[in-house]
Amino acid sequence: MAEAGRRRARGGGGAARRAERTAIHIETAKFIERKIPNLEILNEEALSIIEENAETVLAEVGVNFVECPEALELWREAGAEIDGERVRIPRGLCRELIKTAPSSYTQHARNPEKSVEIGGNSLVLAPVYGPPFVRDADGGRRYATMDDFNKFVKLGYMSKYLHHSGGTVCEPTDVAVNKRHLDMLHAHMTLSDKPYMGSVTEPSRAADSVEMSKILFGEEFVDQNAVMTSLININSPLTFDPIMVGALDVYAKAGQGCIISPFIVGGAMAPVSVAGTLTQVLAEVLAGIAYSQLVRKGAPVIFGCFVTSIDMNSGAPTFGTPEASQILYGAGQLARRYGLPFRSGGGLCASKLPDAQAAYETAHTHNAALLGGVNFMLHSCGWLEGGLVSSFEKFVMDADQLGVLHRLAEGIDMSENGQAMDAIREVGPGGHYLGCEHTQANFKTAFWKTDLLDYKPFETWHEEGARDTVTLAKARVEKLLNDYQQPAMDPAIREALDEYVARKKAAEPDAFV
Amino acid sequence: MAEAGRRRARGGGGAARRAERTAIHIETAKFIERKIPNLEILNEEALSIIEENAETVLAEVGVNFVECPEALELWREAGAEIDGERVRIPRGLCRELIKTAPSSYTQHARNPEKSVEIGGNSLVLAPVYGPPFVRDADGGRRYATMDDFNKFVKLGYMSKYLHHSGGTVCEPTDVAVNKRHLDMLHAHMTLSDKPYMGSVTEPSRAADSVEMSKILFGEEFVDQNAVMTSLININSPLTFDPIMVGALDVYAKAGQGCIISPFIVGGAMAPVSVAGTLTQVLAEVLAGIAYSQLVRKGAPVIFGCFVTSIDMNSGAPTFGTPEASQILYGAGQLARRYGLPFRSGGGLCASKLPDAQAAYETAHTHNAALLGGVNFMLHSCGWLEGGLVSSFEKFVMDADQLGVLHRLAEGIDMSENGQAMDAIREVGPGGHYLGCEHTQANFKTAFWKTDLLDYKPFETWHEEGARDTVTLAKARVEKLLNDYQQPAMDPAIREALDEYVARKKAAEPDAFV
Repeated sequence: MAEAGRRRARGGGGAARRAERTAIHIETAKFIERKIPNLEILNEEALSIIEENAETVLAEVGVNFVECPEALELWREAGAEIDGERVRIPRGLCRELIKTAPSSYTQHARNPEKSVEIGGNSLVLAPVYGPPFVRDADGGRRYATMDDFNKFVKLGYMSKYLHHSGGTVCEPTDVAVNKRHLDMLHAHMTLSDKPYMGSVTEPSRAADSVEMSKILFGEEFVDQNAVMTSLININSPLTFDPIMVGALDVYAKAGQGCIISPFIVGGAMAPVSVAGTLTQVLAEVLAGIAYSQLVRKGAPVIFGCFVTSIDMNSGAPTFGTPEASQILYGAGQLARRYGLPFRSGGGLCASKLPDAQAAYETAHTHNAALLGGVNFMLHSCGWLEGGLVSSFEKFVMDADQLGVLHRLAEGIDMSENGQAMDAIREVGPGGHYLGCEHTQANFKTAFWKTDLLDYKPFETWHEEGARDTVTLAKARVEKLLNDYQQPAMDPAIREALDEYVARKKAAEPDAFV
Repeated sequence: MAEAGRRRARGGGGAARRAERTAIHIETAKFIERKIPNLEILNEEALSIIEENAETVLAEVGVNFVECPEALELWREAGAEIDGERVRIPRGLCRELIKTAPSSYTQHARNPEKSVEIGGNSLVLAPVYGPPFVRDADGGRRYATMDDFNKFVKLGYMSKYLHHSGGTVCEPTDVAVNKRHLDMLHAHMTLSDKPYMGSVTEPSRAADSVEMSKILFGEEFVDQNAVMTSLININSPLTFDPIMVGALDVYAKAGQGCIISPFIVGGAMAPVSVAGTLTQVLAEVLAGIAYSQLVRKGAPVIFGCFVTSIDMNSGAPTFGTPEASQILYGAGQLARRYGLPFRSGGGLCASKLPDAQAAYETAHTHNAALLGGVNFMLHSCGWLEGGLVSSFEKFVMDADQLGVLHRLAEGIDMSENGQAMDAIREVGPGGHYLGCEHTQANFKTAFWKTDLLDYKPFETWHEEGARDTVTLAKARVEKLLNDYQQPAMDPAIREALDEYVARKKAAEPDAFV
């Protein structure tokens, strides 16, 4: 961190200093440190059964590492039984191997104030990841572009309760598949100063992510610190593919953080039951995290869990359902049992519109993620239509809701001031508290305040146009984008990033698949 | 129960039998019996502090019983210090007096299958209570009428996950204030067969509620069983008014259930801090429940808590906020500490429309109520605009969501079938579970199923008109009201109820205040 700090302080000259002087201070809340307990829905017996069953799955069924000869060799050396691409892992081996994985780690941001701690009682909030489409109130649903991507990064930068800039906030489909990671990383690095995620769609793109991070943070700093947390999906059931394993190799060797995450639509990629799904999740994550430690002991990794259920009528995935919440709560308990940071989804929903369905589903997932002990909440804002769409309005709607989670996580203030006995004595039966001393001293910070929702009296609301949440959100998107000011950056670093992207883009022809 | 059963079986003749033969079977889920733990956000030290502070409030500040000479006399005899209307209650006295209050009780329905248990690990879901306005998608917001009231009772009867018909599902403003309770009770008794609430707006109206219940259930049965749970609000801070105390007297003497509930907008009727509010809530509830036991030892009562926060900018109440959730969680712990059934709000929201704001707020409250150990959830569906409006669309939207709570409360099935090890073995790495034996055997009941929300693929949804949640809800309201069939009732009972209402209405002139 110190080096990154020095680089910023040293470099830049007049332009950077002018930019810093005129910059609006954008407030970003510190990552959440929970002061409330987690909800534990499984008892010790249930946890033991799932653990035992997962060991059985690993030992008897095994996992496939497809087209990963080096990975198979690492597993063989570690004592697993290799049969073609199948890796059967003796009972207890994964548990032994994962002991070197840290229980928490710091992911550094270029702005040191925005670095985050991932693990323990922390909760880091990151935006939607992956949708090929965007939706806004005026334009409806359409393929996402780099222009959309930049806007989401700016909205993320402007969102107080979002700690992380994320990764593929939408797929910029107007940029070649083999080059868009360069533009995406460049956007996160230059349009925001929050921590970000690296590319995982090719090992070479993961390598680009590391290289560009070295330009931003300095080579030595990146060698010694985690500056990215990237998303390695397991091809459930029980399959690791060469793309993801290759990206994991790059990041683990570089000491960069990875989420090892089953990607499961329950009933399709895992059993239709919650306990069965948890068993498979645990087996997959244990194999993935153990593998990461074979690549490099101590590589920072997160116990990931992305599980939803299926609508058995249409075959479509559902989100924000009770089974998804149960799996989240259970997986959180398993992650804590192994002393690993935990990731699960945030504002997940299946609705096509940012309407009541979307909000019910999102709030269920938000609550479960907070109370289930999630440390890294991907998709915490902006996710729509089962992850096919990044919604501008829903981004700011959900981002506002993240303030609710911050406040809830603070727990109850039991100080003398919190107890408010003087106020109760002062007001007495039949009085009112609006004017009392305690209220005057505390009202500014007593309650969570929305930046979006409408609490005005009916008449005022009606006179102002009877706006619904989406209409209010549309106005807020416009305001935030208008108010946006780019965070200052050392021009030399900016130039080097520009040059890297230009050089890499020129080095190969565009690919669109 | 037996008597009520016999009366139904005996009475009625041909018309009733024909009605029973042609009746559609309306499915009603059994009240929830939680198999998951509650979330405990306060530790023992915090609980002790609040308890100690509440005793201090009762002993030093006291509560007012306004214009209630008989209540003051009961308190005096019990050992309290009376000073005008102020009742100061020595430390420990309330704790002693409330020992006779049952930790749970059965509220009987005229259909014995729909009787509910209130207390312990149960959760009984009741609809919105109290709004003077209604809203629907076509007509917008307007004063509620008896026709609206009847429709809400019918919707409640048709809602699978709603266990209780409620009370004032909206205020029928087209009926005289001194007579509308008769029509409301008549509607609950004849249009539904679920349990209901009695009138509390005058002691005489509470007496009418008891009388009409005796017609419905038989006098002896009502003398020996609780057939109503009614809402006694405390006039916070620390004030009991003669109307509510009078109604409580009637119900307690009749052995009927009452919710003793502070009604608090935090910052106005209680301190602006959560711990201070919890202290006041506990003092008020202890006084109210202790009083109920002075009226009749063993009278069934519920620890009520209706608390929200205030928007310090507009002074308007807010709902679904983190402070409201904290208070709900804390109050639930206090109720359990005293071994009392617990009531808190359900689908509370401040939004003027059944939009995303409404759904976020409602889902927060639903989750907190489930995880906070609520036994009786009033307002679990249909509540809008801070309780000023009963919304038809939101009623069916929320009622659908109550299915989520049912499923979540079931916990995780850890049976052999739930563990699904055979399925994992059968499918193996890279396979899929859609066709496997375990999925085929379980898919029909594996996942919660919505009756409302849309999980169809985008293209199908788009072809069907790209309907949002409110549009889907509007269609569902129409369908349920079309499908509605009145539950069978002994014509002799029906006639007696009609006669009672007509006689009481004729006995005094209409009053409109």
